[in-house]
Amino acid sequence: MRAEIIAVGTELLLGQIANTNAQFLSQKLAELGIHVYFHTVVGDNSERLLQAIKLATSRADMVIFSGGLGPTQDDLTKETVANFLGCKLVEDEPAMKRILDFFVQRGITMTENNRKQALVIEGGTVFSNDHGMAPGIGVVQDGHVFVLLPGPPSELYPMVEEYVMPFLMAQLPDRQVFHSKVLRFFGIGESALEERLLDLIERQSNPTIAPYAKEFEVTLRITARAQTVEEAEQMIGPTEKEIRNRLGEYIYAEGESSLQETLVAALTERQETISFAESCTGGALSSLLASVPGASQVFPGSIVNYSNEAKQSLVDVPQEVIATEGAVSALCAKHLAENVRKKFGATYGISVTGVAGPNETEGKPVGLVYIGLSAEGMPTEVKQLQLTGRRQAIIGRTAKFAMFYALQRLKER
Amino acid sequence: MRAEIIAVGTELLLGQIANTNAQFLSQKLAELGIHVYFHTVVGDNSERLLQAIKLATSRADMVIFSGGLGPTQDDLTKETVANFLGCKLVEDEPAMKRILDFFVQRGITMTENNRKQALVIEGGTVFSNDHGMAPGIGVVQDGHVFVLLPGPPSELYPMVEEYVMPFLMAQLPDRQVFHSKVLRFFGIGESALEERLLDLIERQSNPTIAPYAKEFEVTLRITARAQTVEEAEQMIGPTEKEIRNRLGEYIYAEGESSLQETLVAALTERQETISFAESCTGGALSSLLASVPGASQVFPGSIVNYSNEAKQSLVDVPQEVIATEGAVSALCAKHLAENVRKKFGATYGISVTGVAGPNETEGKPVGLVYIGLSAEGMPTEVKQLQLTGRRQAIIGRTAKFAMFYALQRLKER
Repeated sequence: MRAEIIAVGTELLLGQIANTNAQFLSQKLAELGIHVYFHTVVGDNSERLLQAIKLATSRADMVIFSGGLGPTQDDLTKETVANFLGCKLVEDEPAMKRILDFFVQRGITMTENNRKQALVIEGGTVFSNDHGMAPGIGVVQDGHVFVLLPGPPSELYPMVEEYVMPFLMAQLPDRQVFHSKVLRFFGIGESALEERLLDLIERQSNPTIAPYAKEFEVTLRITARAQTVEEAEQMIGPTEKEIRNRLGEYIYAEGESSLQETLVAALTERQETISFAESCTGGALSSLLASVPGASQVFPGSIVNYSNEAKQSLVDVPQEVIATEGAVSALCAKHLAENVRKKFGATYGISVTGVAGPNETEGKPVGLVYIGLSAEGMPTEVKQLQLTGRRQAIIGRTAKFAMFYALQRLKER
Repeated sequence: MRAEIIAVGTELLLGQIANTNAQFLSQKLAELGIHVYFHTVVGDNSERLLQAIKLATSRADMVIFSGGLGPTQDDLTKETVANFLGCKLVEDEPAMKRILDFFVQRGITMTENNRKQALVIEGGTVFSNDHGMAPGIGVVQDGHVFVLLPGPPSELYPMVEEYVMPFLMAQLPDRQVFHSKVLRFFGIGESALEERLLDLIERQSNPTIAPYAKEFEVTLRITARAQTVEEAEQMIGPTEKEIRNRLGEYIYAEGESSLQETLVAALTERQETISFAESCTGGALSSLLASVPGASQVFPGSIVNYSNEAKQSLVDVPQEVIATEGAVSALCAKHLAENVRKKFGATYGISVTGVAGPNETEGKPVGLVYIGLSAEGMPTEVKQLQLTGRRQAIIGRTAKFAMFYALQRLKER
């Protein structure tokens, strides 16, 4: 099966946004074993859009559209596709109800052009938009599959995961099931991970193993093709076991849970709390944890101590520690972790002190970082790292390392 | 002049990377007043690439390629374009020298396939690759312009800025100069800003006015076409003045300086310091400021106080303030700002306390935020905001508002 992705929107042609929808959709189609041969981007112009539809239909079995489902005059995708297919647009009742509710909830009067968002192609499958207004649409005609999706990634991604993937699977000739399991790694790079699994990755075509790196974490997706989900799970089992044997120490979670979400969930479950004393990360660690809804239950707060004075006056690091060992030292990290834990009355106190760059400090090299880990009833531990990269990469990776170590500490306790 | 961008690479069709090159090139072409009508992505397959070249040449005057200039068998762009144009490939001596030097410097033996990277289309303009090995190529034939660029953004971006832009300008029929000035706004949304300038935006075609929203800030690019840069600057002048008359209160900087960079630069220049007491932003404000290199000179630190106990014990908010007014209150914000300033001995103390969501707190609605501003020798001020959106949007916008108010305060002092 061959697919083509058509993204519609003049903002893409002006370079105001990148076509991340095409990237996401390509990944999803690859998971289904569907080959994508072309991506096309076309502006909000019905003539050129029609030209793109004709071309795509001539060379692909499946055409996926993103964008152009909104309320304004510019939004032309539904009208143009319906015109090409010789179909009518009809109002979808559940979609119209969602749109009306949206405006009622916000206490705003709906402008008439919003009705357009509830129109769908007659006879098509409607994909509910759980994060916006315009629903998605799937149409099968003359052996071709057409899928129309909203442009905003915050609407498109969940719609694809929830409704479009099962719809596409049902269109596949052999009706196979694709089932995945995701393992989440930290503390090992994507290429090192791939190297340690290269024999498995190269030897196996079912299940497949695909690593992916994002925000300093690596995920590994194991995908099996089978007749049923149960069969696919059985096929994934031995591969997962082998991966865990080799790299289990780096795995911190399964599925779609980031390090910060995993840490907040673990603390919530144990009814424990955590506080940070941040020097070189400057608030990035606190900010990551606080980005998780419900973090306030496990995170009383933290102290960002950039200056040496703040380390002394606010986190009670003895002046002689800074004078003899320096602010970037294991001993300073130990004091920071222990004292911040006491100050906030938290179960865990985590400190970070290091050199984020661009310049060295105290004669210490860029990328040198100490992470202190203090926990109720356990001896304090200090980890030393030598990271590489630019300032923002060092800050981001340090914050993730701190959370990874905190998770380990929590499991030991 | 109409352009089309063709990105070549199977990794794009598999979704392993996003087509950010097309975004960057679109921005650059827009600056030159060149209209981009299509983006196409095609895999490493010479037949389908040839099909894409033929189509693009039939509907555009200018075709820009990215990717497929490397040393491997997959890299087919040069060969396929040369074949289409009926031109030969010849070795470019300076490029070959650069490639040889590259291997000598690293002490590695060059494999023979790297010679392929020095091949260019005979008669074309060669763009030196200052950050990699494969040079870029420009060819003009039968009224069509063809530009071939390397795929890695770290090579493509500087090559475009340095060599390709002048080459493209020289191809424009009227040899005009495009010159821009960027104004940066905060505290006004993109659509509100556009509405206040609609008459200017619609009436004028030279200079043009283009708003763009990113990370809760709005930038406005004023671009003039003229014979010289000086002439363009003169044309921009009256438009800029009119925009400043209408919306000057929202302008915080010119050019490529974010709010956090502007604030760090202003504090550095005045040799002043700032500290934060963050409740609902949970460290995001500190983290944004700390992301700017050199922030440590103006930012001794801050206290993240999520819990009411932390507000009392660490930032000395009187217990009765929280009991009577609540933690999300103007009075609490006032105490937080004043006390955090004193604790860190900073020139400015900024506090944020509010409800980031997803749930209301103390019976106060999601999006209610108080920002306290304490400055040496000035009365403390508290701003109240009612923001909308999801948790991360409320946190991000609150942090930006706090920096914007801090900048205003700094100018008043």
